[in-house]
Amino acid sequence: MVQVAVMGYGVVGSGVVEVLTEHHDSIAKRAKEEINIKYILDIRDFPGSPFSDKFTKDFNDILNDEEVKVVAEVMGGTNPAYEFTKKCLMSGKSVVTSNKELVATKGAELLEIARQSNVNYLFEASVGGGIPIIRPISQCLAANEVIEIAGILNGTTNFILTKMIRDHMSFEDALKMAQQLGYAERNPAADVEGADACRKICILASLAYGKHVYPESVHTQGITEITLEDVAYASSWGGVIKLIGQVKRLENGKLDISVEPMFIEKSSQLANVDDVFNGILVRGDATGDVVFYGKGAGKLPTASAVVADIIDCVKHLKARKYLYWADGTNDYVTPYEDTSYAIYVRAEAENKVDVFNKAMELFSNSRAIVRANAPENELAFVTDAMTVSQQEKALKALAEYGAVIKSKIRIADL
Amino acid sequence: MVQVAVMGYGVVGSGVVEVLTEHHDSIAKRAKEEINIKYILDIRDFPGSPFSDKFTKDFNDILNDEEVKVVAEVMGGTNPAYEFTKKCLMSGKSVVTSNKELVATKGAELLEIARQSNVNYLFEASVGGGIPIIRPISQCLAANEVIEIAGILNGTTNFILTKMIRDHMSFEDALKMAQQLGYAERNPAADVEGADACRKICILASLAYGKHVYPESVHTQGITEITLEDVAYASSWGGVIKLIGQVKRLENGKLDISVEPMFIEKSSQLANVDDVFNGILVRGDATGDVVFYGKGAGKLPTASAVVADIIDCVKHLKARKYLYWADGTNDYVTPYEDTSYAIYVRAEAENKVDVFNKAMELFSNSRAIVRANAPENELAFVTDAMTVSQQEKALKALAEYGAVIKSKIRIADL
Repeated sequence: MVQVAVMGYGVVGSGVVEVLTEHHDSIAKRAKEEINIKYILDIRDFPGSPFSDKFTKDFNDILNDEEVKVVAEVMGGTNPAYEFTKKCLMSGKSVVTSNKELVATKGAELLEIARQSNVNYLFEASVGGGIPIIRPISQCLAANEVIEIAGILNGTTNFILTKMIRDHMSFEDALKMAQQLGYAERNPAADVEGADACRKICILASLAYGKHVYPESVHTQGITEITLEDVAYASSWGGVIKLIGQVKRLENGKLDISVEPMFIEKSSQLANVDDVFNGILVRGDATGDVVFYGKGAGKLPTASAVVADIIDCVKHLKARKYLYWADGTNDYVTPYEDTSYAIYVRAEAENKVDVFNKAMELFSNSRAIVRANAPENELAFVTDAMTVSQQEKALKALAEYGAVIKSKIRIADL
Repeated sequence: MVQVAVMGYGVVGSGVVEVLTEHHDSIAKRAKEEINIKYILDIRDFPGSPFSDKFTKDFNDILNDEEVKVVAEVMGGTNPAYEFTKKCLMSGKSVVTSNKELVATKGAELLEIARQSNVNYLFEASVGGGIPIIRPISQCLAANEVIEIAGILNGTTNFILTKMIRDHMSFEDALKMAQQLGYAERNPAADVEGADACRKICILASLAYGKHVYPESVHTQGITEITLEDVAYASSWGGVIKLIGQVKRLENGKLDISVEPMFIEKSSQLANVDDVFNGILVRGDATGDVVFYGKGAGKLPTASAVVADIIDCVKHLKARKYLYWADGTNDYVTPYEDTSYAIYVRAEAENKVDVFNKAMELFSNSRAIVRANAPENELAFVTDAMTVSQQEKALKALAEYGAVIKSKIRIADL
């Protein structure tokens, strides 16, 4: 029998307790050990809970109990999750987590502590909810170079964009609907401004390329500026707008990594990932493109990934699993202004024809695109790849020529 | 340093040697051991090969060399692969394979021998080529009940169907094209008649539900009877025809499993899996639908999956991985005639209106569907779910009433 503790009894934590309790027998068979929840840590009271004998408000109960071998940290946030995780790992307990914020900001340090203590720190649930992605990438890595990872990593924003694309709902209305359905929080900033997707692409990038990528080094742009006009132009171009987290390693060893809305061709596998679903494309030099698709969040999908990690820890109490990356360096990510990609531009101008002719001079191979019912003074075009600093220079020149730039959106090269 | 042997130097075998050689250093880092190929077994000569010092025609060289800890069986077929695998496992060598025929027909026996010898028998490459699927399902299983698995498991037939759907090519022309491109063999029977897909769904079913499912117990139908008329009706119904291997467990514990062409709604994730790609949907009670997508075959994708298994064996030379299923029983699969599903029917009849009215009596909720340029005497309809024996009775009655039944195709309930 192995004793475990669950820290945090929110949505995911109660799901973990539910899965461990209801699947108790089949899990024992899989883990080849009975798994018993000894403690549930939460500062709140849960009167009448069937698990009332397990609740504690004192972290030291868990830390000082040598019987507890595996701890599920499902509190979220970095404080006190960071301190608690560190102490557990140092005292020889394996830790599993769904806490993407903590892994994205402190992953390298915690993995190093786990290595030194010869225990495991696993976080399958931190990216893609119930979609197995951390292990498959480790596995792909075994005999592959990862050329690129690109994914729809946030279900809330994908739901909003899907409503905008399919039902021509405005961003504001779609966000309100997402909040009513419980897909978005009352303060939706972490989702709609891209921070959540950024943490996830940082975790995937750190894993795939072996050095920690910190969220603050990643250009991150959300979907708050996306309009129905842009959605219409994307459609006439032959695609859809998706919020994409992407990373690839450049020849100089640095990473090109960002989170931003992108035009995606309809034929791409990621273009058909709709609603609250996530889709993650991993491009390997030997495997080619492999895509993982499923619900990226939710109580039971996430809880089942946490429980799978608990089982893995129980099976590896003595032999540590190989899941590790080194700390990153300041210059590991290439400056965003040096990255190069094609763009879509929408502008307004009274001297529209002149402005478009000017755009043909300023941008690489710019082609006009149109939409139905566009106002007389609107123009839009797509270009070939240019660096971000070249783009900015050209857009500034175009503005000086009389254009009011309304949107600039990256075109994916997936 | 761990010594390994590669049995079979065909497409996959030469890929395995290539990956192990070219990624030698990064693999050593992953496996925490250098991996050296000591033998390559093949009855053919490869004059001028850079690996000439490793070739042998005598299996006993490998079997009797105690230094060899892991053997990659990439010969294909059951003879002599079965004998060789058995002997290796019995003598304490782990075996990894891409041989779906062997795993599908002898998996339970070989897994039991591996268990008794405390070694590993791994076969990630046997399903989905380079798509990680065996490990993710094991992982999903840890904290999930698998409700259903459904997949496009054969790239050759998917290529042919895609050509029929997109370019209105006949089956014969599309097959010829697949052969010219090297996607289909000169004798394409194993692909187009469904045997290859059947082996793969048997492996996935055995893994997901814990007991061996033998290919001969699975209703298997290929795509040789699919016509452009059927493709057109599928399109007007709102979907496409795909060759689907599917399995679910019924309430009585028996499996409902088959390989057959199915109508799939356009909105399904599997409907957009085109060309030589595979797509596998795993429906878990906690995770919901998770879909894995990628190239299901090819030298390097398959080789990289074999090498990932070799690395896993090297990391688990002492601790066996949990990958096991028990032997199956004769009555484990529910009789096909008792399974129940909706169908599409195409027929010819001079008394067309009468025949359709008769169909409304005979079938559950039958609705007519139409296509452009249909001959005067053609009719087609779709029904609600009925058992196969009810379907056959109704089709017989319809034929007696004057209809010539041209096609009957299952409608997927994914």
